[in-house]
Order: sequence, then C-alpha cells, then structure tokens
Amino acid sequence: MPIYKAPQRDYRFLMHELLGVSEQLGQMPFYADNDMNDPDLLNQVLEEAARFVEGELLPLNRTGDVQGCKRSDDGEVTTPDGFKAAYKKYVDAGWPALDADPKWGGQGMPHTVANAMLEMMNSANVAWAMYPGLTHGAVSALSEVGSEDLQQLYLPKLIAGEWTGTMCLTEPHAGTDLGIIRTKAADNGDGSYAITGTKIFISAGEHDMAENIIHLVLARLEGSPEGTKGISLFLVPKYIPDASGKPGERNGVVCGSLEHKMGIHGNATAVLNFDGARGWLVGEVNKGMNHMFIMMNAARLGTGLQGLGLGEVAYQNALAYAKDRLQMRTEPRTLPGEVADPIIAHPDVRRMLLTGKAYSEAGRALALWLALSLDTEAHHPDEAKRKEAADLVALLTPVAKAFMTDNGFNVAVQSQQVLGGHGYIAEWGLEQFVRDARIGQIYEGTNGIQSLDLLGRKVLMDGGKKLQKLAGLLQEFAEANEEDETVGSYVSALSKAANQLGTLTMLVGQKAMEAEGGKGADEVNAAAVDYLRYFGHVVYGYLWARMAKIAADKVAAGEDKDGFYAAKLATAEFYFKKLFPETKALSVQIKAGAEPLDVDMKAVFGFEAAH
Amino acid sequence: MPIYKAPQRDYRFLMHELLGVSEQLGQMPFYADNDMNDPDLLNQVLEEAARFVEGELLPLNRTGDVQGCKRSDDGEVTTPDGFKAAYKKYVDAGWPALDADPKWGGQGMPHTVANAMLEMMNSANVAWAMYPGLTHGAVSALSEVGSEDLQQLYLPKLIAGEWTGTMCLTEPHAGTDLGIIRTKAADNGDGSYAITGTKIFISAGEHDMAENIIHLVLARLEGSPEGTKGISLFLVPKYIPDASGKPGERNGVVCGSLEHKMGIHGNATAVLNFDGARGWLVGEVNKGMNHMFIMMNAARLGTGLQGLGLGEVAYQNALAYAKDRLQMRTEPRTLPGEVADPIIAHPDVRRMLLTGKAYSEAGRALALWLALSLDTEAHHPDEAKRKEAADLVALLTPVAKAFMTDNGFNVAVQSQQVLGGHGYIAEWGLEQFVRDARIGQIYEGTNGIQSLDLLGRKVLMDGGKKLQKLAGLLQEFAEANEEDETVGSYVSALSKAANQLGTLTMLVGQKAMEAEGGKGADEVNAAAVDYLRYFGHVVYGYLWARMAKIAADKVAAGEDKDGFYAAKLATAEFYFKKLFPETKALSVQIKAGAEPLDVDMKAVFGFEAAH
Repeated sequence: MPIYKAPQRDYRFLMHELLGVSEQLGQMPFYADNDMNDPDLLNQVLEEAARFVEGELLPLNRTGDVQGCKRSDDGEVTTPDGFKAAYKKYVDAGWPALDADPKWGGQGMPHTVANAMLEMMNSANVAWAMYPGLTHGAVSALSEVGSEDLQQLYLPKLIAGEWTGTMCLTEPHAGTDLGIIRTKAADNGDGSYAITGTKIFISAGEHDMAENIIHLVLARLEGSPEGTKGISLFLVPKYIPDASGKPGERNGVVCGSLEHKMGIHGNATAVLNFDGARGWLVGEVNKGMNHMFIMMNAARLGTGLQGLGLGEVAYQNALAYAKDRLQMRTEPRTLPGEVADPIIAHPDVRRMLLTGKAYSEAGRALALWLALSLDTEAHHPDEAKRKEAADLVALLTPVAKAFMTDNGFNVAVQSQQVLGGHGYIAEWGLEQFVRDARIGQIYEGTNGIQSLDLLGRKVLMDGGKKLQKLAGLLQEFAEANEEDETVGSYVSALSKAANQLGTLTMLVGQKAMEAEGGKGADEVNAAAVDYLRYFGHVVYGYLWARMAKIAADKVAAGEDKDGFYAAKLATAEFYFKKLFPETKALSVQIKAGAEPLDVDMKAVFGFEAAH
Repeated sequence: MPIYKAPQRDYRFLMHELLGVSEQLGQMPFYADNDMNDPDLLNQVLEEAARFVEGELLPLNRTGDVQGCKRSDDGEVTTPDGFKAAYKKYVDAGWPALDADPKWGGQGMPHTVANAMLEMMNSANVAWAMYPGLTHGAVSALSEVGSEDLQQLYLPKLIAGEWTGTMCLTEPHAGTDLGIIRTKAADNGDGSYAITGTKIFISAGEHDMAENIIHLVLARLEGSPEGTKGISLFLVPKYIPDASGKPGERNGVVCGSLEHKMGIHGNATAVLNFDGARGWLVGEVNKGMNHMFIMMNAARLGTGLQGLGLGEVAYQNALAYAKDRLQMRTEPRTLPGEVADPIIAHPDVRRMLLTGKAYSEAGRALALWLALSLDTEAHHPDEAKRKEAADLVALLTPVAKAFMTDNGFNVAVQSQQVLGGHGYIAEWGLEQFVRDARIGQIYEGTNGIQSLDLLGRKVLMDGGKKLQKLAGLLQEFAEANEEDETVGSYVSALSKAANQLGTLTMLVGQKAMEAEGGKGADEVNAAAVDYLRYFGHVVYGYLWARMAKIAADKVAAGEDKDGFYAAKLATAEFYFKKLFPETKALSVQIKAGAEPLDVDMKAVFGFEAAH
C-alpha cells in the first residue's frame, strides 16, 4: 500500500524561513489577536493535521479507487467504505472550520495553514478531500455576496462541515463557454426561484457524507440578456431548511447518474437534474459570472494543490521503491554484499526522483506564498499591501493552477516510471496517482484556459502592470544577490529569463495588436500555453534561488545538522541545470507565433467552415 | 464510442513515394518472385487488413477494457466477450501468417505490410493485438535458433495462429536485471528439462483464444555460471504435443493470478508458476540472453508501434471532437449561425491536434523505414546492403521503441485534453488510450533502458560508426536540398541539430572516459534519456524534411487535388516551428552531465549505502 508522510520540515522551512509567515501575520490584528502569529502554534496545528490525514485518509485512498461511488435507482449515492466515518471524524475535530471566519463559527486560522493541510489531504486521498474542498468555494461566494439571511442560514452549517457545497456550472453543451448555458430560473414570487435544467460533472454533487448538500447553480433568469451578462447565481439546497434551520422538504434536484471516470473514483461526479427546484438568488441578478469567479479562484488554487499533493505522494512512493529495489550493479557498488544495487544508485533514477522533489518543493513554496498573500489581501491594515497582495494572487492564480497540475501529473508519471512494471500495477498505487492527477489539468478551467487568463487578461489587458510588480521583486532579489557565490549563477540565469519573459510578452502583445481581420486573439491563443510554462519557470526559479540563498547561509553558519539545507542546495542546482532549461525551447516556440497554426483547415483537418 | 479509420492514404504516400517500397522489394528475389513488388497488391492487402481491424477489433476495444480477463480457481483465463471469436476470424483469414516464412506455411509478405497492419490493430484494440503480437517474438526466436524438430513441431502451428506464444523473462525480484533470475532448469535426461520458478508480467500468458500456448522461458540450467552467462532459453508448452502434434498432456505451468493494471485490461497479464514443467532447450545452453534478444528486438519495434497506433487513434478522436464541439466564438466567426464556433477554430486546440498529427506521421515513416530495413536485412542479395540495413535497425530500434511510445503517450494525453471534461469520462475512450499507452514506455525494457542501449551500446561502444552512417544519409539529403525554397530552412535547422548531436555524443563519451572511480557509466546514464529524445528529433526532422520535399514537388506540379500534400507541408512547418525546438532545451540538459545528479544521498534522499 502506498506510503505518505506530510512534509513537516519543509512547511516549517517555507513558513518561517522563506516567507516569515508569523511576522507577516503579526502585522495583521485579525491574526495577532488570535495568537496565529505564534510559530509553535502553527507547527502544532500542522502536526495535528498530519496525524489525521496520515491516519484516517491515507488508508481509504485505494478503497475509494476500487469501490467508487454507487448510485441507487432513486438517485441516492453511497460513498466508498470508510469515507463517511472519516468525514464525521473530520467534522467532529473541527477541521472544516480551520480558516473560516469566527463570525460564522470558524476558527479564523490563516489560509497558510489551511493550504498546507489541503496539500496533505490531496496527497493522502484527493477524492475524499474534494467533498470538503468544494464546500470552501460555496462558503467564499456566500460570505462575499450572499444576503444576510442566506449567510445566517447556511454559513454556520457549511463552515462546520455539517452540510457540504457544490459548484454547478457545466452543462452538456457548455463547459468553458458558460455564456450559452440553458438552465433557467423562474421567479416564484415568494423570494425564491424555480430552477430547471441539467448540470454535469458536478463534483461531490450527491453523497451520503453530510445531511445536506448546498448547490450553487448558474442559471438564466427569464428575460435576462443572452450570453454571460444574463447569468445569475442561485443557492439550491438538496433539502430545504425548515423553520428551525434543519433539513426539511426534499428539493427538486436529483442525481441522474454518476460518471465513469479515469480516476478520482471515490468522488461522486454527478449529473444533476434540476426540475423546478427551489433556489435563492446569491448576490445580484445577472452578476452570476462575477460571483462564480469568487468560487472559481479559490477552486483554482485548490486544484493547483491537488497537483502538488499528488506529485509529492507519488515522489515519496517512488523514492521508497528506489531505495528498496535492487537491480543491476553500479560502480562503486552501493551494496557490495547483495546481488544488485538499489536503483537509486543509477543517475537516471535520481533524475526522475529529483524532478519530483524539485517541482514539489517549488510548488509548495508558491502555494504558501499565495496563501499568505490571500491572508494579507484579506486582513492587512495597510491598503497598499492589500492591493499588492491581491494583484499577486490575481496574476499567479492561473500559474498555480496550470503549472502545478501539469507538473504534478508529469511527476506522477515519472514516479510511476521509477517503479518499472510495478508502476503499472494497481496495488502499488502509482497508477492511481497518475489517473487522479490527470483531472487537475482539465477541470476548473482547462490549463489552456488558465494560460489565456494569464497572458490575455492578467498580463496584456492589464498593460503588464502586475507583471512589472513581480519583475520588481525578482530584480530586487537579483540585485542583492548577483555576486553571491552560491546563488549568483542562478540569479544570472533567472534575470536573463525574466528579461526574456518581458521581451516575449511585448512580442506577443505587438503581434496581437498588428494582426488583421480579427486575428489578434489568435496570437495570444497560440502563445498562451507555452507562455504560462515559461512564466512558471521564472516564478519557480525565483523561489528556488531564494530558497537556495537561505540554505547556503545556514550551511555556511554550520547550522545544517540533518542535511536539510544541503538537500535544498542540491535540489536547486538540479532545478536550474535540468528543468529550468525548458525555457530555451519555450522561448523559440512562443516566438514562432500563430503562423504555424494558421493552416488550411480543409486540407489538414478535413474541416470546412460554413460560409 | 471511439472512431478509427486506418490511414490508408498515408501508407500509400510513405510506401510508394517516400520509401519506394515496391522498387526496393523488387531488388529482392524473395519478394519479386512473390509479386510483393506490386504496389497495387500491397495497397489491396492493407485495405483488406483495415476492413478486418475496423470491423472486428475496434468494436471490442471498450468491452475489453471494461470486462478485463477473468481467472478461474484452477487457473484458466477467460478473455472479454468477442475476443475469442475475433481471433478465430483472424486465424481463419490467414492474417497471423502474413509476413511469415512460406517454408512453415507463412504468406511471405514483407514486414512493411505486416508493420502497417500491426499499427492498425494497435489503434483499434491494443490489448487484443498483444495476443498474436507476442507470438511473433516466439516465431522469430524459434526460426533463428530452434532445432529442426522444434521448428517442425511448433512453427506451423504458431504461424497459423492456432497456438500463441509468450515471452517469460521477468520474475518478482528481477525485471531489467535478468542476470539474477532464479527459475531453474533440470535435465530430465530424455532431451527435455524440468522448469521450476515463478514468472510475472507475462502478457497473453494464459487465455482461451487458442488451443495451446507456447511459453519461451529464460531459466538457469543447474551448474551454469552466475549472471547473464548462465541463462538458457526453453520452450514450455501449456499442453505437450502428442505423437500426432495435437495438444496432449497438460504441462506443469499454471496461471497463479492476473495482475490488476492501469490499462490493457483485455490482455491477460499473468503470474505463471512453473512446477517441474517439461521444457525443451531453444538454441544453445547458456546463450539464452542472446536468443531472447531476437524476440526482444522484434518486441521493441512492436511496442513502438503501440505508441504510434494509440497516438494516431487518440488524435483521430480528438480531431472529430474538435470539429463537432461548439464552444466560444472566434473572429472571424467560423459558424456565424451558431451560438459558438467549433473549438478547432482556436489556435491552441490546433496546436494540440497538430502535435498528434506531426508525431504520428513521422512515427509511421520511421516504423515503415525500419520495416523495409528488416526486409532488406533478411532478403537483399547484396551483403553490403544487408549489413547497412541491419546497422540501421540496430541503431534505430531503441529510438523507435522509446521515442514512439513517449510521443504516443503524450499525444494521447494532449488529445484527451482537447475533449476537456469529456476526455476524463470513460465512454469517450480517450482516457483508455492514455492508460493503454502508458505501458509502452515501461515494458520490453523501460524507455530509460532503451536510452542506455542507444547511447551506451549502439553509439559509444560502437565508436559512433552506426551513427556516422546515419549522419551520412542526413548530409546527403542536406547537400541536395540546402538551397531548396521550401525545405531549405528545415535542412538548415536539421543540419545544425545533427552537428550538435555529434558534438554532444563526443562530449558525453569524453566525460565518460575521463570520469574517475568507476563514474564513467554515470555520465552515460545521466545523459541517456535526454540524448535519445534529441536523437529522435533529428530522425523525425530528417523524415519530415524528406516528406516535405516530396510534397512541395507535388504541389508545384499541380498534383494536389485533395490537399494531401498541402497538409504534409503544413504539418512539417508545424513540426519544425513548435516541436523540434525541444532540442534547444535537451542540448543544455545533456551538457549539464551527471554532476547535478551526483547528490549527497543521505541528505537529499535519506539513503545510506552499506559500506
């Protein structure tokens, strides 16, 4: 059975040495008053979280994959053995409320801590983690734009985890393109609406783990304009709360079927049929898309954490196998008494392992940096700091979602490769990590859509302002460290790549402006995926250089008893020598532009547009 | 349900325009006497093959995945519904004997044709195709080194497909490292041997499709030296043929269990327990490894064809979806009357599709080039030509295996991405292609092992002689076409990369020689995977440039009514602009050498070698 240990030492390094989380939180009265600026307390919470995750969730991971969810003829769904019991323990221990607002019963802990716990849950059992995970988005949207009545009725239950939430966006004919959804809302005249339509791909859409499920549903109110400007957001409970706030009448939303999927079998991916279901408007009429983006942004970072968590656990299992499996001999012999040496002695095996380690540790740094920025955005007393943090979150959220899920999938695949034939066999668990990781690149906006969000919306439409702020951080670090013995060469590589990123940005922007016949968007579309990957390497390069600097100082000061900092330095070196050079190819591909994609559609694809 | 149409037009282009298969076969009396130099006849065979594959195998692909194979308590295995009936049709139509020696009942057709049919079978149903596929290896080994008695008893049955074959190499503790296998052979004194041991991961190891299964088994004869020099090859039939050559007494080899795998569910991957099973020596005592390599080399090209076939079918399905799925609007509108445009109108979607097209078409060209080289190696009257062909096959077999399966998997993943959420859903079939494609990178020698075979054995240990011959072909083409209006720029990029490949080869070779303390092998090991990928791009670049040249001439001559050649040109352009630049990154990574991988094992991995 797969193993997993939460990377506690790395959390402490990142929080306290790289990011200075406690000092930062100390500047925010919300957390200082709460003792959340006490590093020991943060560490203890993470240790407690790890005990729960390793002890309760990890053992259910394969069960969930093998059993999957079962739907009865009347649309009720049973989750795999143990899922419900583990969820009860999770709720009883108060974990759902970890970073929620104390106003609604939350514990008011920082996102930084909740983010680390979410990574752990994704490593141990991503399908299980999605049940409470989806609730988070619903809480965000309700907190921000829900009416006081809706908040009072639903937030305490959702935050306590007694009820769970969903996001109902996709329809059979409308995925990325939410402007064409057909689900309708009719005004009942009593403050409620009748919602009718079919939603598909609804994660945690129906299950037996909580007593009620609160669906947040995009629908078109009768008489609303076409497209995205005519969409509103509705709250549709599975059971309509009665006067005492307890689940009452069964609402007209039924699970029509469960999807058969490549992975995340333990999570119920439901087709939901809404047949005049009673719903309540969340926020303003026709502002549903804006409101939904509150949920989506939380979900996007959460999806990035799935890539991170799955890459990490795949790496841990590949590492354990590589130390244990004896195959072929190395010179000098690692285990002279044995018939063969452990495969970790072969450089190519270490290449695969270090790929996992380098991407996981940089991804973790990025995730925690963004989590701290979310804390800052929400609670810093200085408005400029809040704005700065918000800009960083906006810019880096698509990078975190796409780069972390792409890397997570690739790391899972490479980790599977370390096990050779055993990697293909279910009992070893690696093939499940690969299948589970694959969805992260697809849902919550495909990684192609994330790339368009980054290059189109967050960079070009912003006139490069957010990008320049990030570049300022890089430059500041570079200027301070360009002569550094250890990280000077990294700084040099990073600075070149950052400058090149600026050049590439301007190049694409210019091509887009100069293109004729509406083809400007094509230039952005053609470059976006390679651009995001280039961007991701610049961000990871920055984080690796910073981590290496801290590690080098510790080693120089003789403060590296367990070799933790030596390992950071070795991994940074590997990253810059073996992974970062991907930018060399990406740069050429970005420069090639849209022209090689502007092919004769009839000749190449047998496609004829209607004219 | 997934679609598939065999790429007939591409086969005709590659065989008759790129490779001149018929002229080449015409130089070989074996084929000329057989009318196999008649292009129309070759085309007809391929059309017939496609009818069988599309009509009989494709419809069983998902059935096979969903049902898998079932093992009864006594070790008998039932294949998925329809597999056995389809196999009977395959045998009745004479397909198993397609490229086999007429001496044993074969049809004596060229490998070129059999290779194309194998690609089709892998596209339509790779799990099914593995049953007859494994037989091929057994036939090769028996034909080459089996005694006349064994050949007469077994070859006609195997070639007719009445019996199938297996390769029994792997044991629980020994995969790549066959030198440490424990399966024993004891001399029965009657010309037979008693084979005892456990073999795992045996594809098509037990099933109900044929009346007998012939296992070719690596085992250690009592008293043989340790390591690979003490291993012999034995033939162990499931049923021992009686005096009339019919299946008689049940032999002591039993399927102990079937593996639960990520994919290829329709193929029975068996644990086989040999308990004093009667076996017969194939070839010479203690030469088992050499003999097994005859099977392995055939299997490696066959595995490459799995990557090709799965990439192709995944591409075809992504293309169909991309034309059909309406989502978001493009400027100018492709379907002005609809609410949205087909996603093929978005450049990033075309990028994913063209990646599939470019890799599949180059892979097909490589596979057929190698198949023709196998025909030449076997049947050309000129010894120098035979040697030249053999060298090319030896050099390019690891490239075909690894580069084609890596690309096949990546293309399947990208094609899945084109479908968005539907790509993750089983019914659409894409996720099965991804799972099925994953094994090709692992078995028949992992792609890491292929890379070591290429760089270590086929290039460096060969003193670069085979590589220089290949370089000669490239140079010849480059010199003839460097001024060409269409392909001149490709020739220039290709020549630079080919020169760089030479430089990188010398660099790694020199580092390996200069390394101290037995670390020379580490330099090869560290560079091998990136080196093979670089090598693969040089080979594909050469093939794309040649294909583009032919296409350009046809277009210039006004002979491109259906746009086939325009499509080739567009795909070549895409390949050189968007895929070939990967070499820029690989070159930097190869140059970085083993140093970034030579980490402190205790600090980085918590691993302490025994001293």
